Amino acid sequence: MIQLAALAAIREDLERVEAALLSISPPDYPELDNVIRDLVSAGGKRIRPALVLLAGRCNRYSPERLLDGAVSIELLHTATLVHDDTIDSAALRRGRATVNSYLPAKAAILIGDYIFAQAAMFASRPQHTSVISIFARTLMEICDGELRQMMGNHRAEVSRDDYYRRIYAKTAALFACATEIGAVLTDAPQRERRALRLYGEKLGMAFQVVDDVIDFSSTSEQAGKPVGSDLQQGTATLPTIIFLERASYPDGHAEAVRRALEGAPDADHARAVELIRESDALELAC
Amino acid sequence: MIQLAALAAIREDLERVEAALLSISPPDYPELDNVIRDLVSAGGKRIRPALVLLAGRCNRYSPERLLDGAVSIELLHTATLVHDDTIDSAALRRGRATVNSYLPAKAAILIGDYIFAQAAMFASRPQHTSVISIFARTLMEICDGELRQMMGNHRAEVSRDDYYRRIYAKTAALFACATEIGAVLTDAPQRERRALRLYGEKLGMAFQVVDDVIDFSSTSEQAGKPVGSDLQQGTATLPTIIFLERASYPDGHAEAVRRALEGAPDADHARAVELIRESDALELAC
Repeated sequence: MIQLAALAAIREDLERVEAALLSISPPDYPELDNVIRDLVSAGGKRIRPALVLLAGRCNRYSPERLLDGAVSIELLHTATLVHDDTIDSAALRRGRATVNSYLPAKAAILIGDYIFAQAAMFASRPQHTSVISIFARTLMEICDGELRQMMGNHRAEVSRDDYYRRIYAKTAALFACATEIGAVLTDAPQRERRALRLYGEKLGMAFQVVDDVIDFSSTSEQAGKPVGSDLQQGTATLPTIIFLERASYPDGHAEAVRRALEGAPDADHARAVELIRESDALELAC
Repeated sequence: MIQLAALAAIREDLERVEAALLSISPPDYPELDNVIRDLVSAGGKRIRPALVLLAGRCNRYSPERLLDGAVSIELLHTATLVHDDTIDSAALRRGRATVNSYLPAKAAILIGDYIFAQAAMFASRPQHTSVISIFARTLMEICDGELRQMMGNHRAEVSRDDYYRRIYAKTAALFACATEIGAVLTDAPQRERRALRLYGEKLGMAFQVVDDVIDFSSTSEQAGKPVGSDLQQGTATLPTIIFLERASYPDGHAEAVRRALEGAPDADHARAVELIRESDALELAC
């Protein structure tokens, strides 16, 4: 749960979100109760539910309606993470073993679908159909971005525009969804709803850029995943794009990074990460 | 599309469902347009949308609201099939190559999620939140059943009760959802809504039993998939359960079927299928 002072106003309601997340009815198989409970309780900083509640604070705050939206968005996020990790065969998430690392991929797909269903259930509770429309559109944007990333990976000529489009889908779409839902559930006027949506979007873009810089700058213990994991998977994030844009690096360096990104069999992945870490690309990205 | 005479009354509206299905906005990648269009257009008999429309006929028929529900349920069905085939590594569906057979599993997971999102979008359009609740509950029942099947496969002591619970989740839940949504979208009284839901459920149970018999009785050309594919995957359907219940078969026969179901390394799968085909189990199942 996030601990910023600015969040004091919603702390109690965030705790109610936490309790609601832990109460999602698990399927009939006791072996899976714990898996789903662990997944939901390992939930990181709860930024998205906090955004729903904070956006709601801008208007007539009504925790009952906002709570369902907040729980729903966190479940939607969790479901997409389960499928993402399965797709990427990722072993760690927030320092913990992923579901797909200890259960067959097929169980992970189904558990993701089950959590989607739970998200839809909570989204339907405030009796507000635009909430569902916003959710559905967001899920489409997320899938579209993932498909785009899958088709475009291992290419060294990724532009900043491609990158921004991708991180919009990956992160900013759900942030924008959170603030918009906060507005909708408190009957904010149209202009305010648009402004809050835009705020969420910009915050999400910034959040993802920082996350992508941390992927290079942190240690694997801090990040809970291997350093430079994006590059390893063939994904060019902003630091890599900036590094490749700058002609001033010695030629061999750009080539080494390019080959690592393209997954060349003889590429030295660790050296490519080191070259980016030691350059000014991380600073320029922020 | 189904061709029964009883469906004449809704034929035009079913054609509108078909057109709406083909118009779902495809993601940004042209390579995937055709995949998604093929998936949706290869859609079999359109029984579930027909059930929405027919259930709606029992009340104040209002095609506009019913159409969105009918499209939504077919998309939900399609999405679950894409994930099912990925989970089972199935090569054929309705005689056509499955998405997962020619694209990486990760693309198939995402395409399934994308179609889920489209289903949610259509479900939100009639501005009726109970439609979303019914959908969400149905998706949960489907996932729960799939998880149960996965955990329980390759067991020879499956009871009829287990089987009926499984086919409820696999088929009857969505049939019941279809008829209930038809009732809800035409503002049917509560008693009628319950009756229509029950009708859909019973029809779905019967439909799945017949489908499971056909898995044994047809040729692979007729079925568009290998004969006895359930047994091959370790799933005991009603014919297999009845076969194993009956003590009158020579012992070696039951043992051969049991070993095939349990996936024993030396099991003769083709012989096990033949034993069930030649027994009275298929007739008793119907």
